[in-house]
Amino acid sequence: MKVTSIERVPLQPVQMEGTRGARMRVMLGEADGAPGFTMRLFELEPEGFTPRHSHPHEHEIIVQSGSGTLWSREAEHPLEPGVVALVGPDEEHQLRAGSKGMAFFCIVPNEGHG
Amino acid sequence: MKVTSIERVPLQPVQMEGTRGARMRVMLGEADGAPGFTMRLFELEPEGFTPRHSHPHEHEIIVQSGSGTLWSREAEHPLEPGVVALVGPDEEHQLRAGSKGMAFFCIVPNEGHG
Repeated sequence: MKVTSIERVPLQPVQMEGTRGARMRVMLGEADGAPGFTMRLFELEPEGFTPRHSHPHEHEIIVQSGSGTLWSREAEHPLEPGVVALVGPDEEHQLRAGSKGMAFFCIVPNEGHG
Repeated sequence: MKVTSIERVPLQPVQMEGTRGARMRVMLGEADGAPGFTMRLFELEPEGFTPRHSHPHEHEIIVQSGSGTLWSREAEHPLEPGVVALVGPDEEHQLRAGSKGMAFFCIVPNEGHG
């Protein structure tokens, strides 16, 4: 069992090309003995974003604070606390923060992290 | 892609023996096309609890509101918003709400749900 909290996990830069103002905390993952999936908390600065991209693994997202949008080819979904989202395998997507920034949990299979 | 929010997902009773005052919302799962894991939001009434039990699949937990504890044989961990926890496979555990209840996301492999 591992129990931790947001402020105890260090913030790391997000290195993906096409990202602006994004950092993340790896809350739980393979190094903690998690057999299947990794929980990250992404923190976007105001107007920050992740790249418009896709990958073979899915995302499960929980908005933690702030607000923004989740873009797909079909729609741009507003995000705020209480909203959750599934991004399916190979689905093109982008997360963008509004003027106050946004933090969201993003859970992926271990092989989709790193 | 599926985007939804807490209030749009119905509350269901939790039927496990040894549970008191627990309901849940299945936020994202196999029926939504999630290939690997299922996200549930559990809502415990004040002093409510899940059973002291174990199972072969892991839990990843994010406290959403309220407070309570996560019991294991080794320790009783306080829970409040901002706290996350990994319960490993076959690890005995119990979630208990304090006097104001507690809501927490609990993510499991699809085969661990239902």
